[in-house]
Amino acid sequence: MLSEFDLIKRFFIRDMPADPGIALGIGDDCALLASVPGVQTAISTDMLVEGRHFFAGADARELGHKALAVNLSDLAAMGATPLAFTLALALPDADPVWLAAFSEGMFALADCHACRLIGGDTTRGPLNICITVFGAVQAGAALRRDAASAGDDLWVSGTLGDARLALALRRDEFAPGAATWTAAQAEAAAVRLHRPTPRVALGIALRGVARAAIDVSDGLAGDLQHVLAASACGATIDVDMLPAGPALATQPVDTRRAWTLAGGDDYELCFTAPASARDAVVAAGLGAGTPLTRIGTIDAAPGLRFRDGAGDPIILSTASFDHFRTA
Amino acid sequence: MLSEFDLIKRFFIRDMPADPGIALGIGDDCALLASVPGVQTAISTDMLVEGRHFFAGADARELGHKALAVNLSDLAAMGATPLAFTLALALPDADPVWLAAFSEGMFALADCHACRLIGGDTTRGPLNICITVFGAVQAGAALRRDAASAGDDLWVSGTLGDARLALALRRDEFAPGAATWTAAQAEAAAVRLHRPTPRVALGIALRGVARAAIDVSDGLAGDLQHVLAASACGATIDVDMLPAGPALATQPVDTRRAWTLAGGDDYELCFTAPASARDAVVAAGLGAGTPLTRIGTIDAAPGLRFRDGAGDPIILSTASFDHFRTA
Repeated sequence: MLSEFDLIKRFFIRDMPADPGIALGIGDDCALLASVPGVQTAISTDMLVEGRHFFAGADARELGHKALAVNLSDLAAMGATPLAFTLALALPDADPVWLAAFSEGMFALADCHACRLIGGDTTRGPLNICITVFGAVQAGAALRRDAASAGDDLWVSGTLGDARLALALRRDEFAPGAATWTAAQAEAAAVRLHRPTPRVALGIALRGVARAAIDVSDGLAGDLQHVLAASACGATIDVDMLPAGPALATQPVDTRRAWTLAGGDDYELCFTAPASARDAVVAAGLGAGTPLTRIGTIDAAPGLRFRDGAGDPIILSTASFDHFRTA
Repeated sequence: MLSEFDLIKRFFIRDMPADPGIALGIGDDCALLASVPGVQTAISTDMLVEGRHFFAGADARELGHKALAVNLSDLAAMGATPLAFTLALALPDADPVWLAAFSEGMFALADCHACRLIGGDTTRGPLNICITVFGAVQAGAALRRDAASAGDDLWVSGTLGDARLALALRRDEFAPGAATWTAAQAEAAAVRLHRPTPRVALGIALRGVARAAIDVSDGLAGDLQHVLAASACGATIDVDMLPAGPALATQPVDTRRAWTLAGGDDYELCFTAPASARDAVVAAGLGAGTPLTRIGTIDAAPGLRFRDGAGDPIILSTASFDHFRTA
């Protein structure tokens, strides 16, 4: 059996060149982040639990990727540049094969974003992965939930709902013949569920362009409600403008609407920007290599309203994912 | 059943005056810490798991205290001033009675140190508490493990071993008649185990006075080894100078030596300082209201050696707590 220290040394400590933002990394009672005048530290933490955020026996490499990705997605939603993260890990046992795959998946994504592991904790227990991530953003430049303004355009990145479709396939939710998909579509949808892409470059490109932003983790409609509540405004969504993922796009309109609006696990950015910034928004999307879709407008009147493709109001019931309510 | 958002609002969001160090607290994708020129951010994370760090059915108020205390202890060991923390919490259910007690215990300690909850995550799952804590320390002033120097005095704060004694009582480790204690001693020892006192004021007072420091969480001998390894030096401990807790002090010498050296859960500070700084160390202890004991010296020769009360070398076997090895 690996000891705790052997485990950390073998799987989590790497030789890396010095990083001016990190004054002290792994190996002391605390890590130390350098201070940069005028630059704030953005902080987010997410805990992933077996059976709730991932299936028992989930692929360890994908899990390492996803645990960090969901945290990077929070940095993206603030427009922060990733800097570092800590990892606390409870494991039922210290399985070297699992740990090698998990750390490889995690570090592969971390390296894409120059995001360093600076500390952590390991213990025996039911599998639980808690990452806290740190980013840098100029004071005043963060994309906050309370910054939406009536008249703003409402945008979303990438596509929505394919992660939810993958979950439905995994859970056998479809009645036989009720839906069709190709093996390639099912595989692409599964990638969306298990290996989400945090929109880090887009978040950074939107600094000074967008007003409010949030990442779509629990379903677009539910997450947008947090922006509306914080900004004391409402919104109207053109539901048939919502960019469904390629697999979901082949499904009936009701499924498409439901899962683009309230699918969950999308990790796209939903943001608002003044109509005068449309060209700058498009340029930000092009610069970040991320497709963007204008999906509605921010209204002064509170509440979330929906319009169909003809521009007529429609009533849709949406429920966002809640970790306690849906148990 | 409480929803995740109701739970957070009811137990974890409090009306607090603005704090200049915290640009944005709970409620967005990320919290934002302000930057202060020349001040580094110290970061530590600890995960507590039922059955490993605390007993099933542990008192929720004590658990709230301890989960934060062990993190504050890491800040203390760096000489950092507490600023803020995040809490990720997996709960088997959202029990309002448990949550009220847990949050009260946690916030009572947080308020003692002006340490703000700035974010977190809640989910359903086997009970797991992961706190990440943030502190402030002037660049260059942190008490690092790699700063010990041959000839330094070796010091420890408070007393050692009573937490281990409380664990022994809880586990019925003593043969009948093998040890004696009063009810008051047993109660005082239990407080050391369940409500540890992080030595925050002492850590701050030791900035510019001590060289290396570490907090004693897994046993003095084992934790000191980390300092020796990082500083490439050795140490000699006067084992009969080790300050046993009042309950442990009544036990036979072998128990006393074993549990002051390798008890675990003490959350005292072990630190080194040049002999020329003895008066300043004593003044720091008095200023922080924390008793200090000089327990040995740092040597150039690697290894950890022990001396008895007569100054004669003795051989002691110590094994520090390891979360995987001892499972």
